[in-house]
Amino acid sequence: MKTLENMTTIEQMEEVTAKLKERAVAAGAETYEDRVKVQTPHCKFGEDGICCKNCSMGPCRITAKAKRGICGADADAIAGRNYLRTIAAGTASHSDHAREILHVLHSTKRDGNYQVRDEAKLLRLAKEYGVKTEGRDIYDVAHEVAEVGLMEFGKPWGHQVFAKRAIKSRQDLWEKEGIYPRAIDREIATSLHMTHMGNTADAEALIRQGLRTGLSNGWGGSMIGTEITDILFGTPIVRKSEGDLGTLEKDMVNIVVHGHDPAFSEMVVTACELKELQDRAKSVGAKGINVVGLCCTANEVAMRHGVRMVGNFLQQENVLLTGVVEMMCVDVQCIFPALASLAACFHTQFVTSSPIARIPGSIYVEFKTETAMDQAKQLIKNAIDNFKNRDPGKIYIPANKQPAVVGYPCEEIIHHLDGVTNSHVDELGSYRPAVDAIKAGVLRGAVGIVGCNNPRVRPDYSHFEIMKELLRNDILIVATGCAAQLATKAGLLNFEAKWACGDGLRRVCDLVNIPPILHMGACVDISRILLLVNGIARDWGVDTTALPIVGVAPEWMSEKAVSIANYVVSSGIDVYLGIEPQLKGSAQVWDLITQGTRKIVGAGFTINTDPKGLVKAIIDGIEAKRAALGI
Amino acid sequence: MKTLENMTTIEQMEEVTAKLKERAVAAGAETYEDRVKVQTPHCKFGEDGICCKNCSMGPCRITAKAKRGICGADADAIAGRNYLRTIAAGTASHSDHAREILHVLHSTKRDGNYQVRDEAKLLRLAKEYGVKTEGRDIYDVAHEVAEVGLMEFGKPWGHQVFAKRAIKSRQDLWEKEGIYPRAIDREIATSLHMTHMGNTADAEALIRQGLRTGLSNGWGGSMIGTEITDILFGTPIVRKSEGDLGTLEKDMVNIVVHGHDPAFSEMVVTACELKELQDRAKSVGAKGINVVGLCCTANEVAMRHGVRMVGNFLQQENVLLTGVVEMMCVDVQCIFPALASLAACFHTQFVTSSPIARIPGSIYVEFKTETAMDQAKQLIKNAIDNFKNRDPGKIYIPANKQPAVVGYPCEEIIHHLDGVTNSHVDELGSYRPAVDAIKAGVLRGAVGIVGCNNPRVRPDYSHFEIMKELLRNDILIVATGCAAQLATKAGLLNFEAKWACGDGLRRVCDLVNIPPILHMGACVDISRILLLVNGIARDWGVDTTALPIVGVAPEWMSEKAVSIANYVVSSGIDVYLGIEPQLKGSAQVWDLITQGTRKIVGAGFTINTDPKGLVKAIIDGIEAKRAALGI
Repeated sequence: MKTLENMTTIEQMEEVTAKLKERAVAAGAETYEDRVKVQTPHCKFGEDGICCKNCSMGPCRITAKAKRGICGADADAIAGRNYLRTIAAGTASHSDHAREILHVLHSTKRDGNYQVRDEAKLLRLAKEYGVKTEGRDIYDVAHEVAEVGLMEFGKPWGHQVFAKRAIKSRQDLWEKEGIYPRAIDREIATSLHMTHMGNTADAEALIRQGLRTGLSNGWGGSMIGTEITDILFGTPIVRKSEGDLGTLEKDMVNIVVHGHDPAFSEMVVTACELKELQDRAKSVGAKGINVVGLCCTANEVAMRHGVRMVGNFLQQENVLLTGVVEMMCVDVQCIFPALASLAACFHTQFVTSSPIARIPGSIYVEFKTETAMDQAKQLIKNAIDNFKNRDPGKIYIPANKQPAVVGYPCEEIIHHLDGVTNSHVDELGSYRPAVDAIKAGVLRGAVGIVGCNNPRVRPDYSHFEIMKELLRNDILIVATGCAAQLATKAGLLNFEAKWACGDGLRRVCDLVNIPPILHMGACVDISRILLLVNGIARDWGVDTTALPIVGVAPEWMSEKAVSIANYVVSSGIDVYLGIEPQLKGSAQVWDLITQGTRKIVGAGFTINTDPKGLVKAIIDGIEAKRAALGI
Repeated sequence: MKTLENMTTIEQMEEVTAKLKERAVAAGAETYEDRVKVQTPHCKFGEDGICCKNCSMGPCRITAKAKRGICGADADAIAGRNYLRTIAAGTASHSDHAREILHVLHSTKRDGNYQVRDEAKLLRLAKEYGVKTEGRDIYDVAHEVAEVGLMEFGKPWGHQVFAKRAIKSRQDLWEKEGIYPRAIDREIATSLHMTHMGNTADAEALIRQGLRTGLSNGWGGSMIGTEITDILFGTPIVRKSEGDLGTLEKDMVNIVVHGHDPAFSEMVVTACELKELQDRAKSVGAKGINVVGLCCTANEVAMRHGVRMVGNFLQQENVLLTGVVEMMCVDVQCIFPALASLAACFHTQFVTSSPIARIPGSIYVEFKTETAMDQAKQLIKNAIDNFKNRDPGKIYIPANKQPAVVGYPCEEIIHHLDGVTNSHVDELGSYRPAVDAIKAGVLRGAVGIVGCNNPRVRPDYSHFEIMKELLRNDILIVATGCAAQLATKAGLLNFEAKWACGDGLRRVCDLVNIPPILHMGACVDISRILLLVNGIARDWGVDTTALPIVGVAPEWMSEKAVSIANYVVSSGIDVYLGIEPQLKGSAQVWDLITQGTRKIVGAGFTINTDPKGLVKAIIDGIEAKRAALGI
């Protein structure tokens, strides 16, 4: 049988990193590997989650001799509190990104910097929000939708509107368990209040609030972020792109957009297409302007413009080490502050744009909706003018590059499934063909692979190993974030990857005309996965917990990931983690997240730092769900 | 000259604690002193604020060898982030308390468990909020005021309404510096977002957001809490009370209310006055029911009912060690989770009432506005029935007890100043007499002493030493929280304390008929001090920064205190701290909070762990302000 020949292996990726590391050493530049060395071993109390800094009587740490902090909080209380704060911070981050996007929507004008691109989605959302549309200017509708959306953060009563999109069995459960999410910011504030000195010391209560806070992200902030971004910049469609460091161009002005909130990067991408700027680039001896995306911004701009993806989280330093980046423009989240001093070792201009992410040593241009296009143009001009400052002796562009197919939001998945639906017999616009394929066993199940990189494990290795094994076992993958980026780099995010699949999955790929790993977007777009899984559950007629569909975060790193894991579990989907949450010092909390939540929401975490063990657990979990369904 | 004879010294307080400690040992009970022993020395990284747990690549710690975390965050970024999160958590706690109180206001009914007690204040607030009052039922007004108040937490646009109460020079400055506070929960979420991995690493940006977040507490959450509590339970008036452990009664059913949010404790206090319950107490052989308050709840119920104050934060275990507490009812904040196991060593029933503060081992009765009175009655019945379970061998009630005068909100201060105003010449209702006294030098200035206890220093000693020295130097004191409780225990919170004062201050006390330490309430009521200082500045015609008035937190412990310190400084009032904020590992952040904020808001922190040094700095600071004013 034919196998997938054109993969980039982890070893090949590591070879590139090693070469770039030599460049770093030559340039006197420090990289994260150096810092990992001096930061390990990590503090065991912190790793175990049993260090409490929540009041100035401490810090307190739990040991065999000191079983309680000064106030009397034990390991369970401390680990539970730390964990809840992590969820709160992750929720705040994802959701605040959505809030910014809502403010952008509120600023839209027919002739403004930002416009409504997906009117149909806006009108659907207006209906859902109870905003009148008939006879109104689309921009009036947009502004009122933004106002309703912004109230999801702060309304004094009621629950998240989008949570009503979940299947009824889930909503009933959330209601019954007291975790139906209220206003997003309120869940965050409640979490901080509960974990303040002298408040909740009961681990289960903390975990429950974590589930609710997570839900306010998944069915609140993140889903709002996704929907409004689609309205503003267009709902993604399937597009071809490329990925990895080889997308940098020696003869072009290279601009890297990095971060998460696409309001900035969209403007940069749009401005780069302007003839006046392309001409200016040529006037300085470049062949043009090459914008590439990094981290989740890569996902955002790839799936809406086909912009190429230069790398994921742990590649952010590598990109600068190539010596050909004229400018790196960042917005929010996951940006190494180390980039400032690293950029200074090269000619790269490092531009920060958000009051949320101020970094010393950067060029700070506070991006504003009213002046966005002018600001973007000026930045690109600066980047172009910087082209001449490259040091030829410092240039090294690795050859690694892979083709990729991106842009599978739910709408595109449905669209592709419609293509295999016999419209004489079955309804269009449903997930039934996918349900049937799973029932028949052609597909054994589906897995969402998401999350970051983390130097605690061999970067990208877990993603890679798990993906390959799942594909081999006829398990379809949907991917977002830095996991999707690894699939890109490896050459798994394209149609040819069917040759890495088992027979069943390959047949599905051929029939439906999809790659076996569907790119669903940035980490904020895991909300799309929620909708996908709920749609499948609805069409199947079962609760989400019954489905042979799970989530995996093999190399998660950020607090956002912990918030995500909580909303995924609360939505009835088991989550498999390749990095341990930092709470092992409490057997109770460990038990709560791995077993306890199964009694509350019917799903929980399985944690295994060995990717081989983790993927085996995933496959076993999927097969167990199948067996329970009698399929 | 006569001196104050009837003080309770720190040594006498410590003697009592030592005796109670013997009881604890006999009962096999652990107290915080035991836990301090095993928790010290504290982790130096935590104490210095240079341990980062904000992502799972870490924890990272800054050392001479490891100058940056894995992402590149340095000591300044890490200490700044930790500090901002502390402020966010403190703001969330104070403000969430206020939110609960607003929900109680929203539940008020003419014949309900909760009613409007201060209609005049409600009407004033309605006017300020733009709520129509004419021809409306007072309860309709109350409900709409609650709705407007609740929007202060989540409104998508605009600033805190109460911030308009500040003098114009302050507001202009906040506007100019970009720290005018927006919706409270938004400031909290912004703070968490900024401190998420890969966002702000610029210490000054973090400190500025700390100022703004603090302001959203002081001129937002806390002030709302204070105002609405006054409307619900009455604006405090001057009352006599008593304080210290001697307020427990051997022959009565003792119920301790502990925490912060008075919605619960008010109901308990009210129910205890019911004849049916008093009779029931007598039927079990008790002489009646003795409710006493602890921590900030003590301040709340003392100033509205004269309920006696059994102690402050570090006395919460001592209270149980007396063996005569039938029930301790707690709501939120500053409650040792250790109380559950301690109560179990005695017959005490330990009752938690809020989903915000769930404590294992407690009796949990979730308090609801609709059933509040019935729940309170049932609890008191349980307490009465528990009277018989006392173990006579475990009883020891210390004799320490002091008379106290409580309840000096701004309204009462103005009222007293009106008494010395020549109404033929001067306007009533102003702070002018106080201004004149300060200008004349009869009073050298005023100091707000606030905050908790902290076993990092000799408990209550700093409060005591600083108070005595300030009084001796003709500096009037206003006090809240656990600082006010120390004044109570020491015997300084009454008219006789004028004998501890210099001649000038004593003259003022006599003339105005006030004690030299004015009790302004709970920690949430530091908002009253903001209004007081702004009122004085307005009547004086200078900015708050010019006044010889400062704030002191000699023994602060909680995250709330850090939030408070930030809003006080942002309001132009210097703050003197007797406990170091945990950020010494960053010279930049240390400099920012002690010097840097002076350039932004005209005030900053002075930190000195030696109370003698601290009080000298306070007096020097006040004299320097006087000199600058030419008085």
